Parts: sequence; C-alpha cells; structure tokens
Amino acid sequence: MLKNDLFLKALRGESVTRPPVWIMRQAGRYLPDFLALKHKYDFFTRCQTPELATKITLMPIDQIGPDAAILFSDILVVLKAMRIPVEMKDGFGPLIPNPIRTKQDVEQVIVPNINENLGYVMEAIKMTQIEINNRVPLIGFAGSPWTLLCYAVQGQGSKNFDKAKAFCFSQPNLAKTLLQKITDTTILYLKEKVSSGVNAVQIFDSWGGLLSPKDYNLFSWPYIQQIVTALKDKTFVIVFGKGCWFALNEMGKSGAAALGIDWTCSARNARYLSGGNITLQGNFDPSRLLSPIPEITKEVYNMINEFGKDRYIVNLGHGILPNIPVDNAKAFVDAVKSYY
Amino acid sequence: MLKNDLFLKALRGESVTRPPVWIMRQAGRYLPDFLALKHKYDFFTRCQTPELATKITLMPIDQIGPDAAILFSDILVVLKAMRIPVEMKDGFGPLIPNPIRTKQDVEQVIVPNINENLGYVMEAIKMTQIEINNRVPLIGFAGSPWTLLCYAVQGQGSKNFDKAKAFCFSQPNLAKTLLQKITDTTILYLKEKVSSGVNAVQIFDSWGGLLSPKDYNLFSWPYIQQIVTALKDKTFVIVFGKGCWFALNEMGKSGAAALGIDWTCSARNARYLSGGNITLQGNFDPSRLLSPIPEITKEVYNMINEFGKDRYIVNLGHGILPNIPVDNAKAFVDAVKSYY
Repeated sequence: MLKNDLFLKALRGESVTRPPVWIMRQAGRYLPDFLALKHKYDFFTRCQTPELATKITLMPIDQIGPDAAILFSDILVVLKAMRIPVEMKDGFGPLIPNPIRTKQDVEQVIVPNINENLGYVMEAIKMTQIEINNRVPLIGFAGSPWTLLCYAVQGQGSKNFDKAKAFCFSQPNLAKTLLQKITDTTILYLKEKVSSGVNAVQIFDSWGGLLSPKDYNLFSWPYIQQIVTALKDKTFVIVFGKGCWFALNEMGKSGAAALGIDWTCSARNARYLSGGNITLQGNFDPSRLLSPIPEITKEVYNMINEFGKDRYIVNLGHGILPNIPVDNAKAFVDAVKSYY
Repeated sequence: MLKNDLFLKALRGESVTRPPVWIMRQAGRYLPDFLALKHKYDFFTRCQTPELATKITLMPIDQIGPDAAILFSDILVVLKAMRIPVEMKDGFGPLIPNPIRTKQDVEQVIVPNINENLGYVMEAIKMTQIEINNRVPLIGFAGSPWTLLCYAVQGQGSKNFDKAKAFCFSQPNLAKTLLQKITDTTILYLKEKVSSGVNAVQIFDSWGGLLSPKDYNLFSWPYIQQIVTALKDKTFVIVFGKGCWFALNEMGKSGAAALGIDWTCSARNARYLSGGNITLQGNFDPSRLLSPIPEITKEVYNMINEFGKDRYIVNLGHGILPNIPVDNAKAFVDAVKSYY
C-alpha cells in the first residue's frame, strides 16, 4: 500500500487536503549528485543501466520530497529501439546521424520487440519500485509520436523543426507511416511499463505547439489519441502538450486522466478550455524558480488558489532548468506541502 | 496619392475586394539579391546606410509584389542608440558584449536624441518613399520594450531568456527603469519615423509569449500600451506579440489599428479573443511555405475564408525563414491576389 497516494487521488479526481506536487525533469539536470554521475557515465549509459536510472530516479525523492517519482530516462530511447541511432552530444543535445527523409529511410524503421530492445527500462522500473518501497507512486513516460518524428527527421534540436515540418508537408503519407510506427511502438512500450509496475504514464508532446491547430490535428493529436485509448483502461494517462492550449478541449475529451498545462495558459483559461472537469497539472514558469524564495512561496500559493486544490497537480509548466538552485526547487515543493 | 491603398483600407476597417498581403521579414534573408549584398556589407552597415536600406526595402516590392513595404532595419538599432553596444555575428546572431545586469548598468543607458543617433533610419525612410513612388504604403517598426530587454540583459539569443527573466524577477524595479527608458526611446523613435513618412508602424513583441500572462502584464504589456497610446492618433499601430494569444483581449482594447496573430491561434480563436472588431494580421505558419505550391495556394484561400476578407491583412505568423524558395513566397502573395 502506498504511504503517499495524493498524486493518485488527484488523478482519480478525489478531494485532497492539499494538491500533490512533482517537477518535470526532477531527476537530473540541476541536482549536484546527478551532475557528479554525469561526469562518470555518458547519457545513454545512465538511461540504459537500471542501477543508475534507479539511483537518479530516487535522488529527488530523498532530496526535495515530491509526491511522485518519475523514472529517469529519455524520450529518445524509443527511436534507438526503432533502429534510428541517436547520439547525445554535450553542449549540443541529441544528434541523429542519419535523419529520416526518404521512403527507404521510413521502411527501415522497425516496430521493435520491447523486451529485447527496451528491457533495461523495465528492469529499472522494477528496481526503482523496490527502492521507493511504497513511499510515492512512480510515473513512466514517452514522447509523443510528433515530437519523436521532429528529432528523427530534423536530426537534431531546432527552434522551429523546419525540416521535420517540410517532410510532413511535402510527404504527408510517408510522415503518417512513420508516425504510425512510432505510435505502435509507444503503445507496446507503455503497456510494458505498466506491466512492470509504473502507476501512471505521461506523454510529452514537447513540440506540438510548433504546429498550427490544423496541422496538429493532422500530425500530432490522432497519434496521441491512439495511445490514450490503448492505455486508459490500464493506467492513468497524463497528456502534456507544450504550447498546445488550442487543443485542450479535444484533450479533455480523450480519456486522459490529466492534462499538463504550460505557464502561458492561465488557470482560468486552462479550466475553461479543457471543459472544467479534468485534473490539470502545471504550470509554474520554470524561470520563475530563479525568483527569491519568498516570492516562489507566494506565487505557489497564488497558483494553487487559482487552479483550486482539487483535480490539480502542482508542477512546472515545462522541465526544470539546469541553473535552478536545489534550495529553490525544494522551496517550490515545500510551499505546496505548507498549503492548507 | 497611393496607387495601392488596400493595406491602409484594411487598417481603417474599410471593405475591400481582397485582403492586402505583406510578409514579415520580406526584405532580406531568403532573397538572392539580398544574400549577394550580405556578402559585401556587414549587418549594421546594411541597416545604417540609407542607400542600402532603401535598396533592400524595395527588393520584395519589385520581386514578389506585396501590398506594403516594410523598411529594412533591425529592432536592435534602438539598443545601440541607447549606448548598449550590439554586434551581429554570422551563424550566432546578436551579441551584447556587456549585458545589462546591475543598477549601474541601467543608469548608464540613455534615452538618446533620435536624430543624432538614428537619423540614418529617417534618411532611409525619406529615400525609400521617393523610390516607392506611391506604389504601396511603407511600414516602420520597433521591438517591444520587453523583447529589447531580453537581448540587452541576456546578451544574446536564447531559447528561454532565463537570465533576462531572472533579472526581472529578482530586481523588478530595476527592470522597470530599463523598460521605461526603452519605452521613452521607442516613442520618440516611432514619432520621428512617422514625421519622416512611414504610413504605419508595427511593434514586434517576439518574446512576449515566453512570459506567463501575469508576468506579461508586469513586464511587457504596460510598455506596449504606452507606445500605442502615444502613437495611435498619429499613425496606424499594429501590435504583434508572438505566442501572446492570452493578451489578445487587452490588445483589442488598446487603440491599436491591428493585431498580428501567430499560426497557433486559429482565425476563429483570434477573432473571439480580440473582441471581433479589430483588424487582424497573419497567420500562415512560415514553415508551411515549404509545402508544394498548389498546397500553399489552397491553404491561403482557406485562411482568407476563415479570417474573412475584411478587417484582415494576410501575412505569415512570424518572419519568413531563410530557406524559403522565392517562388514559394511569390506563390503566397499571388494566391492572395487571385482571391475573389
């Protein structure tokens, strides 16, 4: 039995004394212990070694005390499993040496056997659940098909992912074949995560907000909907689309248990646009954690008052930034815990 | 007398047979003639030499035929005039060698004499108006105070302008002093542009959408409103805030003649959020110009049908990308001209 089930209560829509809190990217980046590990093991070694992933996942639980853990991993492990090699370069980010551009490229992409190719994630989940020892629930995650296509086609990070978009706009059927392969893989992957023991899953559509609403409905949303439909009876699904305020209404009707909100969408707009009945998660501006601590505390209280304490999960509006002092991250979590 | 006053008619809210069209950043970047000039003269030489600015401004008028010209310049010339040195590095973008961070830094920033420091812009306007010879109206522009602060404090381009935000969040009064100096300068600058002969002005708040609505109302909007209020009885003011859908209601009541809309906000949402009575400008996804030409034509027709032909100015939802073929930009303009 979970000792702290606030997060699951919020996902079920049950009334709580205070909302639960966790932080996107809480395991990594800004934590000194993580940075020490980073110097010893490269990026994918950290993801692919269950002992390391477990250790990193637990760091924020012990050090800043959120109400949920999220497995340390990366959305790009799915591309690697699909036979799209990915490298992570320090100070540059992900690099796909052979980006997907042609029919032949797309044909060579496989829907892999999950346990053969991503078994290390399942091991990390089992190991992490033992270490968490029922203190808090564990979240698993995946990138949205569109967001993964962005990297697979562009070949690297980008301000506008123009090559990925040009690929979709000029070869829409080819794009859809690739998106479907990623979707099929992601469904298998998340189902296996649930079997391995995660208590909820989150889909990150980090680049959905680069699309017009019309293109979002062509190249992103239908694939996320497939994933939600396939998973919603097995676990809680949280959908987070950065910059996707325009899709909140559709998302609210999708069967997702909760929706992630970024900081450009006020609580009031988010409640209104999502239909008012679904649990929302967010939406503190990650840069606002650079404010003085008393200011952080005050703004967290304001945020909870605006969203309301029920059907609400406190979080940032995107991942925590690498330059955030641990004390400020802790102040964010502590503010929620002191709310009454 | 202007031979083509469609653009001014749309700004006045008059009925038109087809909407006017121009393209943000139409003068530069993707035009082969511009790229040839770029190899001969550095960035600020192009801005500061009236003959070159005039030549570049006219290029798209002759080559792709939009219904308005926009003076070739850069939002950062205002920072330079305020004694904040700016360099433009190829493949890197703007660099501010001594970013503004302290009280002393802010104190050293001046509200300059416009004609002494930005006289070259006024000369370029007069020269351009002679060359345009009443074919189309001429737009002048400025960056929003918040967007200029972003560069002045961050010191360079950024995904999240975290240093600029940390400056505002930790030293809000100092930030406001700097924003006010930029605002005062911008008002003088735009008034002088109007006296020199521009037919309308546009304020670019390129980074307003990085702020939460609450922070936008602290650090961006009040300064834009001051500029609109100071200019609105002298010329048409267009306000474009990228990602600022949440502020459209406030913008609609500001006295601006038109509002720029990015491609993540549908025509219907834009009309609804802005109050339904103001001229809107936008909002084709710049990457959509990488679509095949028949697709561009079709999507332009759809867009006009959705916004409606009146109180509407066709444009992209942000600046044209450097990798757009001239033929595709021309197809965009031609599609509007063939609309009936």
